[in-house]
Amino acid sequence: MNEPLSPELLARIDAYWRAANYLSVGQIYLRDNPLLKQKLRLAHVKPRLVGHWGTTPGLNFVYVHLNRVINELGLDMIYVTGPGHGGPGLVANTYLEGTYTEYYPEVSQDEAGLKKLFTQFSFPGGIPSHVAAEVPGSINEGGELGYSLMHAYGAAFDNPDLIVACVVGDGEAETGALATSWHSNKFLNPARDGAVLPILHLNGYKIASPTVLARIGHDELESLFRGYGYAPYFVEGEDPAELHQKMAATLDETLAAIRAIQTEARANGFSRRPAWPMIVLRTPKGWSGPEEVDGKKTEGTWRSHQVPLARIAEDPAHLQLLEDWLQSYRPQELFDATGKLVAELAALAPVGLRRMGANPHANGGVLLADLKLPDFRDYAIDVPVPGAVIGEATRVAGSFLRDVMRLNDAEKNFRIFGPDETESNRLSAVFEATDRAFTGEIIDTDIQLSPDGRVMEILSEHLCQGWLEGYLLTGRHGFFSCYEAFIHIVDSMVNQHAKWLKVSKEVPWRKPIASLTYLLTSHVWRQDHNGFSHQDPGFIDHVVNKKAGVIRVYLPPDANTLLSVVDHCLRSRDYINVIVAGKQPAPQYLDCDAAIAHCAAGLGVWRFASNDDGAPDAVIACAGDVPTMEALAATMLLRAHFPDLKTRFVNVVDLMALQSPSQHPHGVDDTKFDQMFVPDTPVIFAYHGYPALIHRLTYRRTSHRNLHVHGYREEGTTTTPFDMTVINELDRFHLAKAVVDRVPRLEEHREAFSRFVDDKLAEHFAYIREHGDDLPEILNWRWTDV
Amino acid sequence: MNEPLSPELLARIDAYWRAANYLSVGQIYLRDNPLLKQKLRLAHVKPRLVGHWGTTPGLNFVYVHLNRVINELGLDMIYVTGPGHGGPGLVANTYLEGTYTEYYPEVSQDEAGLKKLFTQFSFPGGIPSHVAAEVPGSINEGGELGYSLMHAYGAAFDNPDLIVACVVGDGEAETGALATSWHSNKFLNPARDGAVLPILHLNGYKIASPTVLARIGHDELESLFRGYGYAPYFVEGEDPAELHQKMAATLDETLAAIRAIQTEARANGFSRRPAWPMIVLRTPKGWSGPEEVDGKKTEGTWRSHQVPLARIAEDPAHLQLLEDWLQSYRPQELFDATGKLVAELAALAPVGLRRMGANPHANGGVLLADLKLPDFRDYAIDVPVPGAVIGEATRVAGSFLRDVMRLNDAEKNFRIFGPDETESNRLSAVFEATDRAFTGEIIDTDIQLSPDGRVMEILSEHLCQGWLEGYLLTGRHGFFSCYEAFIHIVDSMVNQHAKWLKVSKEVPWRKPIASLTYLLTSHVWRQDHNGFSHQDPGFIDHVVNKKAGVIRVYLPPDANTLLSVVDHCLRSRDYINVIVAGKQPAPQYLDCDAAIAHCAAGLGVWRFASNDDGAPDAVIACAGDVPTMEALAATMLLRAHFPDLKTRFVNVVDLMALQSPSQHPHGVDDTKFDQMFVPDTPVIFAYHGYPALIHRLTYRRTSHRNLHVHGYREEGTTTTPFDMTVINELDRFHLAKAVVDRVPRLEEHREAFSRFVDDKLAEHFAYIREHGDDLPEILNWRWTDV
Repeated sequence: MNEPLSPELLARIDAYWRAANYLSVGQIYLRDNPLLKQKLRLAHVKPRLVGHWGTTPGLNFVYVHLNRVINELGLDMIYVTGPGHGGPGLVANTYLEGTYTEYYPEVSQDEAGLKKLFTQFSFPGGIPSHVAAEVPGSINEGGELGYSLMHAYGAAFDNPDLIVACVVGDGEAETGALATSWHSNKFLNPARDGAVLPILHLNGYKIASPTVLARIGHDELESLFRGYGYAPYFVEGEDPAELHQKMAATLDETLAAIRAIQTEARANGFSRRPAWPMIVLRTPKGWSGPEEVDGKKTEGTWRSHQVPLARIAEDPAHLQLLEDWLQSYRPQELFDATGKLVAELAALAPVGLRRMGANPHANGGVLLADLKLPDFRDYAIDVPVPGAVIGEATRVAGSFLRDVMRLNDAEKNFRIFGPDETESNRLSAVFEATDRAFTGEIIDTDIQLSPDGRVMEILSEHLCQGWLEGYLLTGRHGFFSCYEAFIHIVDSMVNQHAKWLKVSKEVPWRKPIASLTYLLTSHVWRQDHNGFSHQDPGFIDHVVNKKAGVIRVYLPPDANTLLSVVDHCLRSRDYINVIVAGKQPAPQYLDCDAAIAHCAAGLGVWRFASNDDGAPDAVIACAGDVPTMEALAATMLLRAHFPDLKTRFVNVVDLMALQSPSQHPHGVDDTKFDQMFVPDTPVIFAYHGYPALIHRLTYRRTSHRNLHVHGYREEGTTTTPFDMTVINELDRFHLAKAVVDRVPRLEEHREAFSRFVDDKLAEHFAYIREHGDDLPEILNWRWTDV
Repeated sequence: MNEPLSPELLARIDAYWRAANYLSVGQIYLRDNPLLKQKLRLAHVKPRLVGHWGTTPGLNFVYVHLNRVINELGLDMIYVTGPGHGGPGLVANTYLEGTYTEYYPEVSQDEAGLKKLFTQFSFPGGIPSHVAAEVPGSINEGGELGYSLMHAYGAAFDNPDLIVACVVGDGEAETGALATSWHSNKFLNPARDGAVLPILHLNGYKIASPTVLARIGHDELESLFRGYGYAPYFVEGEDPAELHQKMAATLDETLAAIRAIQTEARANGFSRRPAWPMIVLRTPKGWSGPEEVDGKKTEGTWRSHQVPLARIAEDPAHLQLLEDWLQSYRPQELFDATGKLVAELAALAPVGLRRMGANPHANGGVLLADLKLPDFRDYAIDVPVPGAVIGEATRVAGSFLRDVMRLNDAEKNFRIFGPDETESNRLSAVFEATDRAFTGEIIDTDIQLSPDGRVMEILSEHLCQGWLEGYLLTGRHGFFSCYEAFIHIVDSMVNQHAKWLKVSKEVPWRKPIASLTYLLTSHVWRQDHNGFSHQDPGFIDHVVNKKAGVIRVYLPPDANTLLSVVDHCLRSRDYINVIVAGKQPAPQYLDCDAAIAHCAAGLGVWRFASNDDGAPDAVIACAGDVPTMEALAATMLLRAHFPDLKTRFVNVVDLMALQSPSQHPHGVDDTKFDQMFVPDTPVIFAYHGYPALIHRLTYRRTSHRNLHVHGYREEGTTTTPFDMTVINELDRFHLAKAVVDRVPRLEEHREAFSRFVDDKLAEHFAYIREHGDDLPEILNWRWTDV
């Protein structure tokens, strides 16, 4: 092993590391006496000790070593922090390099600033223990574990000059999301993309027990990473001086390897997937912390995970141990009397935007350029009469996305993500503009597959989501298409992204990023062939629990409304947009202008399907493409049976328009709502998802008590498309019957109409069981004015 | 390579495989002429072709080879089918072995039965394309991908004589859940548990593109599995005769290796984790199907994924190709003129319960024995006066669980699952009865860790969930404790398990299994130290979308109610039970008898906290431990300020009691509801989670319009416990103010009370920012009658 660090540099690096460790321990414990100018007293210690020490010294160790190579090699680098509760380390380092004070001037580079720095950590009104949005240089929460490496790859795509150092905790390495993230290297093109340098930090323990990867032996560990396609480098030990040399040498080697890979690919074009370097860093948990507490081994065990000395108030010996621990870093050598980091250490940090806390890639909004969008009107389907034309909504959206892809080809700032479903979701037109990205082996019979592709497909919703998050957080744009049922796989990731967006809006220096836009297709009503397991519209329910300022939900009923919604979503910032739209051939209702107006309003009366003169007998409302078709068919049935019946037809495209304006910014005001959904008039609402959601959104509205919602009742199997609506009572017959049953002046007709419905449904059941497909009158149904 | 199959046996195995393939293709395509006695006509073909061929021949290949070794070695084996849409293959094989007809006598072993078998597949009123609950021998859906291997391990735990063959699709192998599942071998003890034989089926393609593992080369693939701790065996090729020999030889070797591992461990005790064998089976996608369709290579490509010949109705050449394909299996050699499988082939299948479709482990309810439960009353906290005693609910539950563990030690049918949080969630008493399970390296300083442990901890909610599902599905019992926020990681798995339970209740031969019970603790209100990322109570919202017959949700307010609920849940069958309860020291309200009565009622008036005489001015309701405490404190405040105010206090422990009985079997009837929540009387409801859920559950109730819910408003950070309630307006002051604001006769006091509340909150904010902890009057609050 060579020793690249001179004794002087080694000493400075070690001192810098001690400074970061000192500041980390200070954040966890101290509220006063930040330079230990006085003998440590209980009054200097926080009354409520919360925080996590275990992972911090390792994070600090990596940080200072990356600082060295950034300076020496002139690197553009960001630091993704996988381990949970890494907050104190990253805050300490961004403070040492000066970034923290630039963003938060009150946390100044002096004793008063140090006191603020310490006090605010995990303190009411202060900052959390994770690498959250408040922490400069972060694109990753670290609160829910497992997403660091996918975020790192997302950041590296299309950033050829960027190197993303990603510390992976050995706890988080046990998660599913992280375990499959290693395969991201099959999607990274060294000619076009930046590099990820994964650093697996084996500190051996989770909260209470050892980690799997720390206990499988060197051979298996090495095999595992070779199997994942990496060239692993091991940095193992506990003597700081030795480890500093090893880490420095290893970083020199791995960065040279990255440079060699990139140089070769950029000179000669991509030929084959390289074995990218990665580092296994094995150091003790709570390294440099108390060796033993109360007679129990602490450094190097799970007892260092959180607060190794927890009984400061009860036990004076613990207070002394804390002081000894803090003094072991020799703060008087690190900070001058005013509390400022001594100049020779400060000089170790990179300057300006090369500081990892200040790197603009980690505050992607500052790099964000608007996406160039073609005029979506050019892709609109001609709809001369509502309901007469058949179209495939997602196929139309696919043509628009193809040209979005083309228009931004030079900028390389747009990608499409989805688990092997772009074709299945009928967005196939995008393959006229680009391929699927893949750097694994490509053979002759493969099509639409290339290392230069911009469609990111892997059968892992986690990776699609995580890559996209990383891509957006670093200032680019994306689009995620997914089977509706399986987007639940990333429920918890969506939670975390929504929380990140909420908090980052409250952090003044964080700039808005492009929204995360989902197209959920192959939806519940057209998974008749895939069966019950593929039928779940609950993602909408999940997202609406997040902050109204962040969440948008759209249910465009046809192709032109989908186009308008997609265009709108791609222009938006800092939202999570959920679009649900079918991929199957279906009737089209609105021409382009009508679609634009309808989407702008969020919901509205469709005059062509209404015959009320301001005082309807019933309102027929709907949200979602299949419910809209069934609601229109129900309207036709009602007109045929009861020509005098006055019905009003309302379609909802922006679901949040249903909420009160006090609950969601898109909520229509109560007056307008009551004009549309007339109080004391029955409203039969055909909804795409679980009916309870409509009640939940509208419970504050006057007309809520007249609202009867039909939707998905968790009934499903492999059957015909129309039968799916029948078994959930969302079909035209049940809807029409619901109207007849609730309009008082139709009371005398109820029994007859009920018999009619029973007969029609019996006919339906008999037919599908005989023919395996829906009745021709269902298959060929079209809206026509009666 | 040795050739263990005689030419005669090889021929028979190949014929059996052809029979299974023939039946699979028949299911996808045919509705008549099942033995091809007539020239194939369009009328014989289903009008709507839905199904998936690609993975099926490989699944069939594995099945017949497993049949051979089951017979030769007398194995007790089940078959877990990972690849999506494997339905036709498993249905075909269970039909061939006779199981299918035993479960479904109408699908008889003759031509008429064959016709039914073919027609029902993916047909209205028939069966789905996945290995769903309807398929004999299945414990795994195959609809949402990624859970096969964790189910397989769950099945193998504590089943020493069982071998679980688990076919993993190379598509599903890309999922996070599957990628971390390979590490399950660090938790399997050969002395105590059965074996899992993973068979990675590389057929190379997903829906539209190649799989990652098929394109990384042999060396990386081998390294990967060695790194995961396996001894990989490769069976690769496309010539059936050659592959039959290779597969047979490999199965002989791998089963011998398993037997050797088990024999050694059982003779000498567990010493070190062995390298368990696994098989990589690389065969063409759609093997034995059409080589080329319309000039495009089909066998061996993604074009075989679904229905390789889709245009039968439009193109007579496709009809001919289909007939050629079916005839290529030479059905006349396989079935006699009546349609019965010829005897020499039928003899290849195992008999009785050794048939994989009939193995009782795959219908776990038939093996299920009641858990022995100690009397939970023995663990109850003494609560002489409501609110005076402090207790830690989960710690008390931990003592009960410890003795559940001990009582069932001999049966080995109970395990506890959780992501490294058993200790953190204060269930530590269980470690007096058992350890954490681990077969990785164990070192001197480790505690509570052993290959014989029955607590399953890994930092992967997916694995905890999947292992537990596999364990329950094979007829055992379990308990899952988890941080509340992160249970969302398995939202989609819960969906699939709920769907499985719903369907299996409709399958007469499926017997009830033990419920899946969650204890969600470290909940939103006490994640003040971990911050916003750890604060999410939305899992309840997620589960209530599933069928009411399957879902139960409990919010016990204290230790004794928690005990009663846990006891109840461990006795239940076929449910998903969600229990939310805190782990922190908190006031106790109900003695054991009161707790039992309260839990049995689901919700009820707490007389000790009520002073109404049947006509309250306001109802104060609550669900959840922290909301209960705040609601009681609000009640005390109101009594102190307004001694004449009549309030009624209602606590809800069984959340579904709030729903109408028409919506959930636990719903209390409307009369009782209206007696408790008096119509036209303001109800201030303090709820644990997102407030909208209470509206959603109660919108049909008369008193819904008087209901004002306080709960989690998605506001959080690192702060004090009480401050968490303040920023979400769930604290005593906001609750009391909500009452004052809504009781008409307090109108004149509103302004003054509002000032009082403002002052108290200002005092709170000032104090926590100065002291970092809550006001002593908050920390020391106790319920006392005023």
